[in-house]
Amino acid sequence: MSVIERLLKEHNDIFQESIAHPLTNELCQGTLADYKLYTYLHQDLKYFQLGLNLFGKTLAYCDYPTAAIRLGKQIGFISSQENDYFTTTLKELTENSDLSKVKKLKEENLTLSSVTKYLDLLNYLTYESTSYIELITLLYVMEKTYLGWAQYNTERGIKKDLAYKHQEWINLHLDYAFEEWVNFLGSEVERVVKSEDDYKVCEAMFVKTVKLETEFFESCYSYSE
Amino acid sequence: MSVIERLLKEHNDIFQESIAHPLTNELCQGTLADYKLYTYLHQDLKYFQLGLNLFGKTLAYCDYPTAAIRLGKQIGFISSQENDYFTTTLKELTENSDLSKVKKLKEENLTLSSVTKYLDLLNYLTYESTSYIELITLLYVMEKTYLGWAQYNTERGIKKDLAYKHQEWINLHLDYAFEEWVNFLGSEVERVVKSEDDYKVCEAMFVKTVKLETEFFESCYSYSE
Repeated sequence: MSVIERLLKEHNDIFQESIAHPLTNELCQGTLADYKLYTYLHQDLKYFQLGLNLFGKTLAYCDYPTAAIRLGKQIGFISSQENDYFTTTLKELTENSDLSKVKKLKEENLTLSSVTKYLDLLNYLTYESTSYIELITLLYVMEKTYLGWAQYNTERGIKKDLAYKHQEWINLHLDYAFEEWVNFLGSEVERVVKSEDDYKVCEAMFVKTVKLETEFFESCYSYSE
Repeated sequence: MSVIERLLKEHNDIFQESIAHPLTNELCQGTLADYKLYTYLHQDLKYFQLGLNLFGKTLAYCDYPTAAIRLGKQIGFISSQENDYFTTTLKELTENSDLSKVKKLKEENLTLSSVTKYLDLLNYLTYESTSYIELITLLYVMEKTYLGWAQYNTERGIKKDLAYKHQEWINLHLDYAFEEWVNFLGSEVERVVKSEDDYKVCEAMFVKTVKLETEFFESCYSYSE
């Protein structure tokens, strides 16, 4: 059994939980309240910005040139398309939606506590860890989770003719290129996890990150002032 | 006087030397011997690969989101176009050119001593330094030097109808997008160098890197077995 198969089998319960959250389910039906989408994107942007630093750190520690090129291409991609989505959609929601339930979050640029916990982990990885296994496992989990909710909802049936704010976020995490990217990250995990000790490091990061993803969705979904 | 103006004025002599080397001059006239071009690209690929890790590290330490996005886009660019040039041209030279004067370098995958010195600096920056000033200054210098030789030779007159192996390398370092990129790196240096102490750190890296660029060109140009 491969490393990835083992991780997904042994921790299937928490992985399934992370990909079937009401936040992403409702997003795929176009029924997610705008203030919830706003909260999610507002918080996710913080995560995205530190995440870009983390991508950089992972590239710094990738000693396999072919893989480094693949990482580099993806850094280029998220610096373009994904960044544009945040800018466009946050602007649109700010101008057109009732955000009175999250006024303080918006005006004081709050960070939710579960997001802080996740950002702390990203900070550790970006500025303290020197373990490529930890770095690549975190990237794998966060992308696999996103591919996961998009696939989970595709199987259940995503609503037709969704607005840009919903559809583009789904597209970014569902198309062939994104699936290929997640597979690449999985192959990097397979490449570097060689011993049972390596597996323990990888597994600890896998479990921690999957749980943080679910907590992140949950805290954005349930936030209201 | 801005930081960049001051650096270029106080160290004009070594900067001019770095942009007017016979290697790049002959490349721009299409007269550079193929084995010299091969040596240069063979060595530069080592530098390019570690350089990509260094780009990653610089992105990790960039705490200004707009600048991080610009760095990320360029990482995407060099992982595509620039990487393709190396692959295509090294293959072409290997198949079609007389490389008997650099047979050992090729077969034993040698690293020239001045290249080792430069790689040591990149290793220090990628895996030890935590100074964004050092990181961004090195990136600025290496790109400014490349824009420099392309501009220097344009002013003197680049030969028309050059082969791909010469023209593409010039194009990659001369077009508007590359100039904008170098200007961005310069603006990052300006943004983070705030005190005279910062300037000293920046200046030391500037001087060291410019000299290493010239030594790099020289050692590839003069190598023969």
